[in-house]
Amino acid sequence: MNFLSLFCAFLCLTPALAIWPRPQNLTTGSTPLRLSSTFSINFSGINQVPSDLSDAVTRTTNFLKTDKLQALTPDRGASSSSAVDSARTLSSLTLKFNPGATVTSLSSEATQGLGTQDESYSLQVPANGGSAVLTANTALGLFRGLTTFGQLWYDLDGTTYTLQAPIQVTDAPAYPYRGFMLDTSRNYFPVTDIKRTLDAMSWVKINHFHWHAVDSQSFPVVVPGFEEISQKGAYSSAQVYTPADVKDIVSYAAARGIDVMVEIDTPGHTSIISQSHPEHIACPEATPWAQFANAEPPAGQLRLASPATTTFTANLIKAASSMFPSKLFSTGGDEINENCYTKDPQTQQDLASQGKTLEQALDTFTQATHSVLLDAGKTPVVWEEMALEHQVQLNNETIVLVWISSEHVAAVAQKGFRLIHAGSDFFYLDCGAGGWLGANINGDSSCNPFKTWQKAYSFNPTANLTDDQAKLVLGGQQLLWAEQSGSSNLDPIAWPRAAASAELFWSGPGGDVRTALPRLHDVAYRFVQRGVKAIALQPQWCALRPGACDVDA
Amino acid sequence: MNFLSLFCAFLCLTPALAIWPRPQNLTTGSTPLRLSSTFSINFSGINQVPSDLSDAVTRTTNFLKTDKLQALTPDRGASSSSAVDSARTLSSLTLKFNPGATVTSLSSEATQGLGTQDESYSLQVPANGGSAVLTANTALGLFRGLTTFGQLWYDLDGTTYTLQAPIQVTDAPAYPYRGFMLDTSRNYFPVTDIKRTLDAMSWVKINHFHWHAVDSQSFPVVVPGFEEISQKGAYSSAQVYTPADVKDIVSYAAARGIDVMVEIDTPGHTSIISQSHPEHIACPEATPWAQFANAEPPAGQLRLASPATTTFTANLIKAASSMFPSKLFSTGGDEINENCYTKDPQTQQDLASQGKTLEQALDTFTQATHSVLLDAGKTPVVWEEMALEHQVQLNNETIVLVWISSEHVAAVAQKGFRLIHAGSDFFYLDCGAGGWLGANINGDSSCNPFKTWQKAYSFNPTANLTDDQAKLVLGGQQLLWAEQSGSSNLDPIAWPRAAASAELFWSGPGGDVRTALPRLHDVAYRFVQRGVKAIALQPQWCALRPGACDVDA
Repeated sequence: MNFLSLFCAFLCLTPALAIWPRPQNLTTGSTPLRLSSTFSINFSGINQVPSDLSDAVTRTTNFLKTDKLQALTPDRGASSSSAVDSARTLSSLTLKFNPGATVTSLSSEATQGLGTQDESYSLQVPANGGSAVLTANTALGLFRGLTTFGQLWYDLDGTTYTLQAPIQVTDAPAYPYRGFMLDTSRNYFPVTDIKRTLDAMSWVKINHFHWHAVDSQSFPVVVPGFEEISQKGAYSSAQVYTPADVKDIVSYAAARGIDVMVEIDTPGHTSIISQSHPEHIACPEATPWAQFANAEPPAGQLRLASPATTTFTANLIKAASSMFPSKLFSTGGDEINENCYTKDPQTQQDLASQGKTLEQALDTFTQATHSVLLDAGKTPVVWEEMALEHQVQLNNETIVLVWISSEHVAAVAQKGFRLIHAGSDFFYLDCGAGGWLGANINGDSSCNPFKTWQKAYSFNPTANLTDDQAKLVLGGQQLLWAEQSGSSNLDPIAWPRAAASAELFWSGPGGDVRTALPRLHDVAYRFVQRGVKAIALQPQWCALRPGACDVDA
Repeated sequence: MNFLSLFCAFLCLTPALAIWPRPQNLTTGSTPLRLSSTFSINFSGINQVPSDLSDAVTRTTNFLKTDKLQALTPDRGASSSSAVDSARTLSSLTLKFNPGATVTSLSSEATQGLGTQDESYSLQVPANGGSAVLTANTALGLFRGLTTFGQLWYDLDGTTYTLQAPIQVTDAPAYPYRGFMLDTSRNYFPVTDIKRTLDAMSWVKINHFHWHAVDSQSFPVVVPGFEEISQKGAYSSAQVYTPADVKDIVSYAAARGIDVMVEIDTPGHTSIISQSHPEHIACPEATPWAQFANAEPPAGQLRLASPATTTFTANLIKAASSMFPSKLFSTGGDEINENCYTKDPQTQQDLASQGKTLEQALDTFTQATHSVLLDAGKTPVVWEEMALEHQVQLNNETIVLVWISSEHVAAVAQKGFRLIHAGSDFFYLDCGAGGWLGANINGDSSCNPFKTWQKAYSFNPTANLTDDQAKLVLGGQQLLWAEQSGSSNLDPIAWPRAAASAELFWSGPGGDVRTALPRLHDVAYRFVQRGVKAIALQPQWCALRPGACDVDA
């Protein structure tokens, strides 16, 4: 991979192909080529094309017509006009499976589990007008290749063209987990927002949607058998995700190569459950909140020492996890407030009667909630405190989300856990937006400063790790906590910024922000054209003149 | 005003009326009242109703039906259901001019000049079902009162109601200038974005649109007689504001009580003019840019010592200013880079042949550009450097925009200039969004941190000023520089945050962020319903529970 990365470092200095993430191996020529007006995408040697794959082909075909991405140069490609007009035409792209491939649907591959997926593909676009060919071992691989194919082209006065044929790509991800996390509890996001986000994720080959579905503020997911929680705990009867919504989101995601890893955060971040189940929540909405909740109001945590609450939680997690085909399920475990339990008479009584410390009770509680997942063949995922701060015997297969600081990665790896990068110091999308607590004139963001795309992009996933520890890194993600977000600003906060980690964890580290920026501008313009409100990263003057607005230009 | 402010400090602690900005005098009762299904707004004693005022009535009538703002309480008003159902109905609002008023159009009043406008109004909404009455001396006053009337109501299952009749308001602005600045050069905003922003501004009684129309990066305004500048200097032929667009924007604004103060920034911030007039620009796109431009690339400034360039600029300003009825016109004058002129042979030659220093040449240049404005009966507006850093003899009537720091206000006032607050330390909307220059992994915003609404709201407009100097304060504004903005994030960056200065400069200083927050939540929800993508300032849990998420709650 290092050799290939070096290889690309040179190639990527040529006028940008609008590809994101950077393929592992990309060679380009200098021959103009344009799409025929009758261009089509066909399958070869496949008896029964999975319907989700053929839907993806339809979408790609449409994008080729509607993207209309102009070259980001001052003349928007006009000086290439005669070269484009006289270029040979490409009339088709042919999709083939490699010999011996077992053809299943894209959706089933997307959810079949980390490390078992084959996303590799190979793409040839000849310069001579012969058909382009995309091959892969799986429908998922073909889907990734289709995504790349859709990024090879610019538009000039209605002609879809490249100046860089022939193009050859062989590609596969550096890491199996590339994610995006959305918090739908602090503020609610309609299903259409989530679907649009899934589309955007798929365009940059992100393959995991970490859905932080519920929290202390609201519980929008309608969990079968636990309907009362959302009935009393959603912001309104309209601000919910019904089982049908969940199914819709899961299948929409899977058809785009994305696995939905849901999170029911426990035992903290559960205040709102007190609305339907006051018996299970310690210190609900206790004030002053800062004494009972680590980060923000309202206070309230599951009574982890109560056998009844433990059973309730395990059953809730069992029911919630059965709504999702994913092998991954997060039980959270962050920011447990000790004082809340110290001041809760029932918890103190439960601990005394069982002769347990709070940490021992947390261990029992966690064993109970994780065993329902393990019994169902699923892998528990937790926030870093569960591995680093508490005395909990986690199953070896548990996956740890490192969020407080990327400097904690080594400690998690030293304990032998697989991990996902989610460091607030690199990957939090909500940082830098000012303080949101009331009555606070000079309040600032809890994780200042704003985390730029460059910051995420420059992250080294294996810093301070041994070679063996480095194998524990599954990948990473950018995250949007929604205290100051909702439908109105989801897109502009997330895009194109969240594409930074998509390339980092697909292409591998070491990318150069200098050569990445022009391609990321392309991503932003393409996203806008496709209905995702990505922001302008720079003045358009800069976007049209790669390098001219570099700090040292 | 102090007495009235105190008065409101108590009243505003009662369940919030969703009024923004806070009226100077507001009394409310505790009687429920709902709008009749046949509710109408009528005029009394007016022979010929100005068409822009009757259009405003139509818009208000529609908003009363479509706002559907639910009370921001956990039950969204449901507990008031029986009170609302049995409430008396209000069937009409009657608009009247005070005796002796001269009736002219809202639009003509909006543009007639600072300090000559009468925006005062008086509004009575009785509790007994009798008609509500709105009176004013001008169409502009009636328009402001209509805006307030539209904010008195919540929705419960289709019924538009208040729980606080009778309501009496007498109101007038504390400051004549409440503004919003938008930069349309770094990135282009379509006319529809500008119109939507004008609507939003009018909803919070902002009365000046400071249009930073052009800059070094692009020149989108098509100025009659100078069409070549935008032809070569707009980002594309589609990314322009034609004279018809300008006329449309100006009349749209005026019909909403807003005066458009355009800015053609000179002599700096003009690089792009070199595309059509290389003879007038020193150091165009010179590199390294940081040596030739103060803040960002591209470098390039008008050759201020050249008589030909001076004439060209004066004629350009004359032509541009004649597109706008406003009495205000900004010639900018910020961030002049001396090195650019030092290294420009022609400027050095011009200075030598005229025996002038650069500052003397700047004075001559400014006299020329300002005299065309003064001759046309307009008032020049400049950024603070022109008053504080340069040896320029500004006309006494010149208005100064204080931007570098609000600590510079006193110095401007000491020089006797009227001033507008635009301090980057309180009012810049773009701060805190990370560094945007390329090749810069740890780059940060040039004006970190993010400026929250609380920060702007808490500003004291007359700090460190004598009583006489305080009279020089015309008002203030929040500003959006568009290096990292465009259509995708205009609304969420600006709203509801830019409403903070709207209330500060309408209601006067001393407002309490604690009581303002619930009303600002109402503003945000109402804006979203009206199609402006205002953001969630807090988790919805907090929005529904005033005070519960205060830092000290």
